[in-house]
Amino acid sequence: MNPELDASAPIGLFDSGLGGLTVLREVQRHLPNERLIYLGDSARAPYGSKGDETIQRYARECAQFLIDKEIKLLIVACNTASSIALKTLQDECHCPVIGTIDQAVRSALQNSRGGVIGVIGTEATIASGAYQHRLNELAPEIRVVAQACPLFVPLVEHGLYEGEVVDAVLEHHLSSLKAQNIDSLILGCTHYPLLSHAIRKYFAGRVEPVECSKAIAEEVSAVLMNSGTLATGPARPFECYVTDGVSRFNQLASTLLGSQLESVVRVNL
Amino acid sequence: MNPELDASAPIGLFDSGLGGLTVLREVQRHLPNERLIYLGDSARAPYGSKGDETIQRYARECAQFLIDKEIKLLIVACNTASSIALKTLQDECHCPVIGTIDQAVRSALQNSRGGVIGVIGTEATIASGAYQHRLNELAPEIRVVAQACPLFVPLVEHGLYEGEVVDAVLEHHLSSLKAQNIDSLILGCTHYPLLSHAIRKYFAGRVEPVECSKAIAEEVSAVLMNSGTLATGPARPFECYVTDGVSRFNQLASTLLGSQLESVVRVNL
Repeated sequence: MNPELDASAPIGLFDSGLGGLTVLREVQRHLPNERLIYLGDSARAPYGSKGDETIQRYARECAQFLIDKEIKLLIVACNTASSIALKTLQDECHCPVIGTIDQAVRSALQNSRGGVIGVIGTEATIASGAYQHRLNELAPEIRVVAQACPLFVPLVEHGLYEGEVVDAVLEHHLSSLKAQNIDSLILGCTHYPLLSHAIRKYFAGRVEPVECSKAIAEEVSAVLMNSGTLATGPARPFECYVTDGVSRFNQLASTLLGSQLESVVRVNL
Repeated sequence: MNPELDASAPIGLFDSGLGGLTVLREVQRHLPNERLIYLGDSARAPYGSKGDETIQRYARECAQFLIDKEIKLLIVACNTASSIALKTLQDECHCPVIGTIDQAVRSALQNSRGGVIGVIGTEATIASGAYQHRLNELAPEIRVVAQACPLFVPLVEHGLYEGEVVDAVLEHHLSSLKAQNIDSLILGCTHYPLLSHAIRKYFAGRVEPVECSKAIAEEVSAVLMNSGTLATGPARPFECYVTDGVSRFNQLASTLLGSQLESVVRVNL
């Protein structure tokens, strides 16, 4: 695909915060020999309640930071940035750029029983219509119900995955989807998989949450295989950069990944 | 106080988002002849869950933006920035700098019936200990119970001031304060006055929420009077700058202020 790409070069991923680690975890599982570099723009998080111009600017700055590390592939591990800035990043980057939308849509269409697909995400993601347009393009017969869930990211960023507050917020954001009898639900934000258990319970097991991370890992695998740039070296820990304090990120990330991060470095963008 | 200050120069206020407008509203009410310039750093909001180094940097950039507008007085209309960066700003600015802590503490001590004072704020504000130290300094006999309420700002920023989600979040964050029989409660975040009604109800009217905005307006008034720099011109609308999109801010701000803003300008910091 891109002949000058070097198999030993790293893969870069970025997100507004720690949600993208759910993608990193899956890529690591599929491709343990790859060198991964993660950037969490925690000093400016969240992205999802911000305007398109701001999100574009932040996404480009994150991408540039990773491109300067001579990556062979860029994963936009953030649905908000994917919805608003993917096209721009694909136009401007020299390497393949993979976002979240297409991968989640593909998974949802594989899982759907042909009825109504729900999509949830941040305000910016839902307002962009990125998911709704792609689903309509690929499966015009399917009805799509989209709903912004602005309180989900704060819950996850504060480590609340279940309990009364989560139940009340789920009821607030998801009751209209329940009323419309969705049969599958795209988790259009990389933070949301941490609420999967609560979401499954809310829909009494009748709706399977669909996340993008597995499909992204498969897509990355396919792209690298096709371009002959799969890494062959030994497995190694990923590099992690954040724009806000290291200790808080480390603490939340280790809960999420189930193990302490080897090293997290603070950078200013 | 500062002889070279010009009475016709504006007063600057900043906050991470729109919470500081509760302070602006009160200053406007007390000092209708003053020219006010408001900066909401909405592109990087919220501050309260971020690290001290990040908050210091953002606060200095906001202050510099306003100082470049040749203000005669700076109001740090954000408890998080006041808790972490007030001393730095006071050292570095040529004009008087007024924060939220002293003003809220003074109001709380006037109101308290001598028992237990509760303090709520963002994670950064509570972790800084700024309120706890100041209360202990001025009234060592009073018991202080502090509690971070990280979900309050997301509620307010999404326009949720009452209802089931608010009730669940209040129970989650405030139950320990209720158990300790506080008799007054400092709202240590300029967003929280928008939840006053719900908080009063939660404590069944037994606890009066204390906010800083009235005390700040009185302090500003006193400082300007003492330095002979009160403005005398006609009342005029305030200037408003934000770092994220204008329309979203305008919409939330007009709900908060009860009237449309005259003009909001977007700037990059």
